[in-house]
Amino acid sequence: MKLSKIATFCKGKLNGNPDAEIMSFGNITNPKKGEIIFIVSSNYLEKAELTDAEAIIVPEGTGKSKKPTIEVKNPKLAFALVVELFSPEPKPEPSVHGTALIGKNCSISKNVYIGPYAVISDHCTIGENSVIDAHSFLGENVKIGNNCRIFPRVTIYYNCLLGNNIRVHSGTVIGSDGFGYEKESGTYRKIPQVGNVIIEDNVELGANVAIDRAALGATKIREGTKIDNLVMIAHNVEVGKNTLIISQVGIAGSSKIGDNCILAGQVGVGNYAVIEDNVTVGAQCGIPMKKRLRSNEFYLGSPVRKMKEMAEIFALEGMLPKFFSKFKRLRKDMDELKSQIDTDVKEKDKD
Amino acid sequence: MKLSKIATFCKGKLNGNPDAEIMSFGNITNPKKGEIIFIVSSNYLEKAELTDAEAIIVPEGTGKSKKPTIEVKNPKLAFALVVELFSPEPKPEPSVHGTALIGKNCSISKNVYIGPYAVISDHCTIGENSVIDAHSFLGENVKIGNNCRIFPRVTIYYNCLLGNNIRVHSGTVIGSDGFGYEKESGTYRKIPQVGNVIIEDNVELGANVAIDRAALGATKIREGTKIDNLVMIAHNVEVGKNTLIISQVGIAGSSKIGDNCILAGQVGVGNYAVIEDNVTVGAQCGIPMKKRLRSNEFYLGSPVRKMKEMAEIFALEGMLPKFFSKFKRLRKDMDELKSQIDTDVKEKDKD
Amino acid sequence: MKLSKIATFCKGKLNGNPDAEIMSFGNITNPKKGEIIFIVSSNYLEKAELTDAEAIIVPEGTGKSKKPTIEVKNPKLAFALVVELFSPEPKPEPSVHGTALIGKNCSISKNVYIGPYAVISDHCTIGENSVIDAHSFLGENVKIGNNCRIFPRVTIYYNCLLGNNIRVHSGTVIGSDGFGYEKESGTYRKIPQVGNVIIEDNVELGANVAIDRAALGATKIREGTKIDNLVMIAHNVEVGKNTLIISQVGIAGSSKIGDNCILAGQVGVGNYAVIEDNVTVGAQCGIPMKKRLRSNEFYLGSPVRKMKEMAEIFALEGMLPKFFSKFKRLRKDMDELKSQIDTDVKEKDKD
Repeated sequence: MKLSKIATFCKGKLNGNPDAEIMSFGNITNPKKGEIIFIVSSNYLEKAELTDAEAIIVPEGTGKSKKPTIEVKNPKLAFALVVELFSPEPKPEPSVHGTALIGKNCSISKNVYIGPYAVISDHCTIGENSVIDAHSFLGENVKIGNNCRIFPRVTIYYNCLLGNNIRVHSGTVIGSDGFGYEKESGTYRKIPQVGNVIIEDNVELGANVAIDRAALGATKIREGTKIDNLVMIAHNVEVGKNTLIISQVGIAGSSKIGDNCILAGQVGVGNYAVIEDNVTVGAQCGIPMKKRLRSNEFYLGSPVRKMKEMAEIFALEGMLPKFFSKFKRLRKDMDELKSQIDTDVKEKDKD
Repeated sequence: MKLSKIATFCKGKLNGNPDAEIMSFGNITNPKKGEIIFIVSSNYLEKAELTDAEAIIVPEGTGKSKKPTIEVKNPKLAFALVVELFSPEPKPEPSVHGTALIGKNCSISKNVYIGPYAVISDHCTIGENSVIDAHSFLGENVKIGNNCRIFPRVTIYYNCLLGNNIRVHSGTVIGSDGFGYEKESGTYRKIPQVGNVIIEDNVELGANVAIDRAALGATKIREGTKIDNLVMIAHNVEVGKNTLIISQVGIAGSSKIGDNCILAGQVGVGNYAVIEDNVTVGAQCGIPMKKRLRSNEFYLGSPVRKMKEMAEIFALEGMLPKFFSKFKRLRKDMDELKSQIDTDVKEKDKD
Repeated sequence: MKLSKIATFCKGKLNGNPDAEIMSFGNITNPKKGEIIFIVSSNYLEKAELTDAEAIIVPEGTGKSKKPTIEVKNPKLAFALVVELFSPEPKPEPSVHGTALIGKNCSISKNVYIGPYAVISDHCTIGENSVIDAHSFLGENVKIGNNCRIFPRVTIYYNCLLGNNIRVHSGTVIGSDGFGYEKESGTYRKIPQVGNVIIEDNVELGANVAIDRAALGATKIREGTKIDNLVMIAHNVEVGKNTLIISQVGIAGSSKIGDNCILAGQVGVGNYAVIEDNVTVGAQCGIPMKKRLRSNEFYLGSPVRKMKEMAEIFALEGMLPKFFSKFKRLRKDMDELKSQIDTDVKEKDKD
């Protein structure tokens, strides 16, 4: 592919030979001839020029180079587009496999792929261009929008609703029962979980995620939010828009997470907690039940505190051993001083 | 449905019009006409009366109301029964799907549902009224009691035994190998895991749970215990009766958990630890290997301490920054005092 | 089976009756007649002799016993071999089930078992004696070596490569997309994940594990490493040889874990962290982004510190309540002393 075509494709400004032949994208550390690479800062230009790369995607304003370059606003993103161009994700051709089972009164739109051994229960709707891959199971009355990709071995329980452009990775379970029990004469009685899960457009769910259906109402994941592998989202949780939830995070029942938040890996959120918009929560944080985290803040620790405060506490904890010695020394100084003064006083008394 | 019928159904005392028509259950925050709601305390009665709700389930002794009420001991539980009444969980009709595979010498009782593409290996037993849903896999010699519900995409390895009234959500794996290896000249050799998993009556397992088979003997989950999503239970663990294990808890090998315990989310239990009966362990606690937690206590922290102690430590950690300043001040005061006294002494000496 | 045969089998030295009939292996706490047990130390010999066990596997140099013994270097390992001998893991006979779907241009070696409803996509290779069990899904161009055991309900995404003697337990997902997004005018744009996962020989993966494919290049698990249930391994991670990763550990993107490490349960490893060889990381540790853990060290805590340091901090934290009182007392002593001295000074001045 000619470099000029790539420049047009990623809306960049081409410098150098427009006819340079690009065969593929390359790894920054060891690109081969014919490969295009990217740098996030012009500081790396010199190093990139020393490689065998055919061309370089660079940040706007990088200027002249010994190799052909494409100047763009966000080189990482432009490179991603180029990668997609050369190495598109394999997508099965629209078709319904002969072994797929489709229930009564289902509405399957055009250009849909339904893979082998997939089971679609009664009254389901699948939008255009969507893929329901092998071994996936949709309970009754599930709705899936357009351009969705349900990877193999996904379960979506009855009544759950997915919007458009949603990706759900293998092993994920949507709509299992919320964990609700009421103690009655020593044993637990199940509280029926009759709500559902609603997932809005452009959400991606990783592998082996679990999202429980609401007791009443809906567990909601709003537009553009991305959820990593092995995350747990309990009943009646609401997650806002464009929020990142990293692997192994657990969010307990009825919590609310705002828009544009980041919950780093293994964070735990207690029941009825509220995380306002634009909050970043560091890895392994613990957010107590009913706690409210304020918008635009960065939090750390378990139990969670504002980053600055917690970072100081972490540092001071590291100083505790030395500190305890210092304290002992001070106590000793004090005791010596007291006894010295007592002696002085006695001596004076003698005088 | 007439209110009188509902009152009888949940064994409550009816006040007001017995013929009030109840169409459904409602959400407390915004119920519609024809809907029944509940309040957990008479304090909320006035507020509930202002809604459009048709009737209210109230705690015993709540007394007169502007709306029809049903007085019960536990309104939340009574409401749960009503919810179930209006919105029963969909359950497939007893039948064996044409694509289900059933091995040799299996005993399948009456009124059983076996879903599409389910695989039941040789010598399995399935009790009356049980559901083995789509894509579930039972290894050889698995026994499942009566009234069980195995949701789609569950794996139960060979020789594992499940009692009656057990629910297992999608993605859960029962009986995978325990993590047992012995180092031999630099590499790990697998210790065979030839035991099984035994799950007693009335247990519920969430989605994507993993329970390992014992090395020898059995990993045991006793009667009435409820286990949430993504929980890990290692080989030879024993969990007592009516215990709640919340999401993402991990219990290491050979630990024993008592009856009526609560392990909150993301708790980690080390190998050979013992948790006695009626213990509550707070979220994200870490229980060291071989540690014993005493019955009727509440624990917090990692490593775990008794709640009162740990809560104080958490509070004091928050005070560390101020405390370090106070200490510095004290150190300074001391040094000043010493130097002042030294000066005094010298002056006296001069005298 | 005669005891002499067992002794030969586990390369041990037989003491006592070589013709003793061993029917099975027994549980150390309550073995029956005809059963063989093991002890890890000669200290337990007397106790073992009091049981009904037929024979005992003992450490080298244990010496005379009232029961027949087999002396071996590692009794636990020898016993494991004996357990395997009496109770071999059930393995399906080589065959391809009639319902298994095999794509175009696949290479299936001899003695392979492919279970019911397994789906093998185009261009896959399966080595000799391997088992791909029921409901497992292999994407296009997946390669699996010899003597592998893929348990039921495993997903392996396209292009992923597995070596020989690998075991993958049920529910595990290999090759799902790494969690890579780039923010663009307020929403996240997906960075394509076009790399793969490479798993070397003799690796075992537990149940419901998730291992993401690399963005570019490969996520790598090297020879002999064992990974427990519900572990998360992100894109471009490299895990060394003979490392143990216990349940629910999460390893973030581009981290490197060395050879012969142990990561205990629920450890979290930040992006770009490096753990050198022979490192042990205690349960629930948190390793910050880009942090390097030095070889041959033992670490604890979140954020992680060297064990000795962290153990001291944990102990000191427990002493904080008492310490705060001691400090208050010291402050008071100081204030009293100061005021006493002030009084003295004033009195002297009066003089």
